[in-house]
Amino acid sequence: MSTLVIVRHGQSKANLANLFTGWTDVPLTAHGVAQGHAVGKELAHRHLLFDDVHTSYMKRAIITADIILDELGQDYLPIHKTWRLNERHYGALAGQNKDAVKAKYGEDQWHRWRRGYTDVPPALTQRTHDRRYDRLGVQVPLSESLQMTQERLLPYWQDQIAPRLLDGKNELVVAHGSSLRALIKYLDQIPDDQIDQVEVPNGEPIIYHFDEHLRTIKKELIKAD
Amino acid sequence: MSTLVIVRHGQSKANLANLFTGWTDVPLTAHGVAQGHAVGKELAHRHLLFDDVHTSYMKRAIITADIILDELGQDYLPIHKTWRLNERHYGALAGQNKDAVKAKYGEDQWHRWRRGYTDVPPALTQRTHDRRYDRLGVQVPLSESLQMTQERLLPYWQDQIAPRLLDGKNELVVAHGSSLRALIKYLDQIPDDQIDQVEVPNGEPIIYHFDEHLRTIKKELIKAD
Repeated sequence: MSTLVIVRHGQSKANLANLFTGWTDVPLTAHGVAQGHAVGKELAHRHLLFDDVHTSYMKRAIITADIILDELGQDYLPIHKTWRLNERHYGALAGQNKDAVKAKYGEDQWHRWRRGYTDVPPALTQRTHDRRYDRLGVQVPLSESLQMTQERLLPYWQDQIAPRLLDGKNELVVAHGSSLRALIKYLDQIPDDQIDQVEVPNGEPIIYHFDEHLRTIKKELIKAD
Repeated sequence: MSTLVIVRHGQSKANLANLFTGWTDVPLTAHGVAQGHAVGKELAHRHLLFDDVHTSYMKRAIITADIILDELGQDYLPIHKTWRLNERHYGALAGQNKDAVKAKYGEDQWHRWRRGYTDVPPALTQRTHDRRYDRLGVQVPLSESLQMTQERLLPYWQDQIAPRLLDGKNELVVAHGSSLRALIKYLDQIPDDQIDQVEVPNGEPIIYHFDEHLRTIKKELIKAD
């Protein structure tokens, strides 16, 4: 028996401004910080004792994780940061207003870029160099579909998270709308043509209870107050 | 060439109340949080790029580290948390007012407990069980001299920090008054009878510049504004 809690970071300044974000490293809003505290209190209320925390290379997820741990009184836990849990890379859409993109490309294409599995947003023409990835020898992608996001996320699940859950540990993952959708698609075995129905709101934890073979016994969606 | 920055956490509620603290996990004061931001800005101003952060199992150090990294725009760095960087365990003195202890035991004994190398404060009569150490199989000490603190800290220096510095990495250590005094005593080869002269104020970073053999080329003490 083990427990996995997955949480999307609190509201970011790009969420508030209705922008596509991707790998752009935007801070939380004051509301996003408050959402982090609310998630921490909600999990503390359930007396959850974690063994590890996993998060991305983006400050909106890292700081949400820090806040949750402090509310839990479990600041001492290791926080494993990995680019594999980063948000999907939104290519040339990053920084663009979602409504403007919808108006320009039409609602159908817009929906497939945002919620589809295989559609790749328009690519950057030039690779961004960023010390945080350069020092790992990781090339920043030019754009990613949800499927590409899942392909680079699953090695981390398989090598770092799943083995700990199989050992009976409780794991907390604080990540992003699309990287968590990619994980949920895998865990819940959602068909490619149905993943567009899955949304992960900011600051609403999902709790998976697993048996000793990592089969889901129960899944709880915690609504924000 | 590599750089080590060591920082004592910002002011804690126990610092403000003039209490011995040790392994008691007290939060920062608002002033302590501000000191963390000031340290982060000071280091950002010097364009320091770190490779790793090392801190203790105490929230006053962990949160100071989080704040410094965010000010540096280097949230993505790994923060390695270890009980070996914890503050010295103050035994039965933890939670007691420093002036009351001085009045009870006399200034000479008080000074030797606080600043000496071998004096062990009065021990707890019972070991505290705390999940954060139990899960590692580490027994909470009953009391520690500065020498005992140094003995449990040095394996972490030798195994985790020094090898990275020898590889040319820049390392940030956010820890505690006495655990940092123990480290400084080792790095600066301070004799046992002179370590009582060394103080590490909250939020005033010390920067070591090392050559490729980990010999100190330069040591800078950064004063708070």
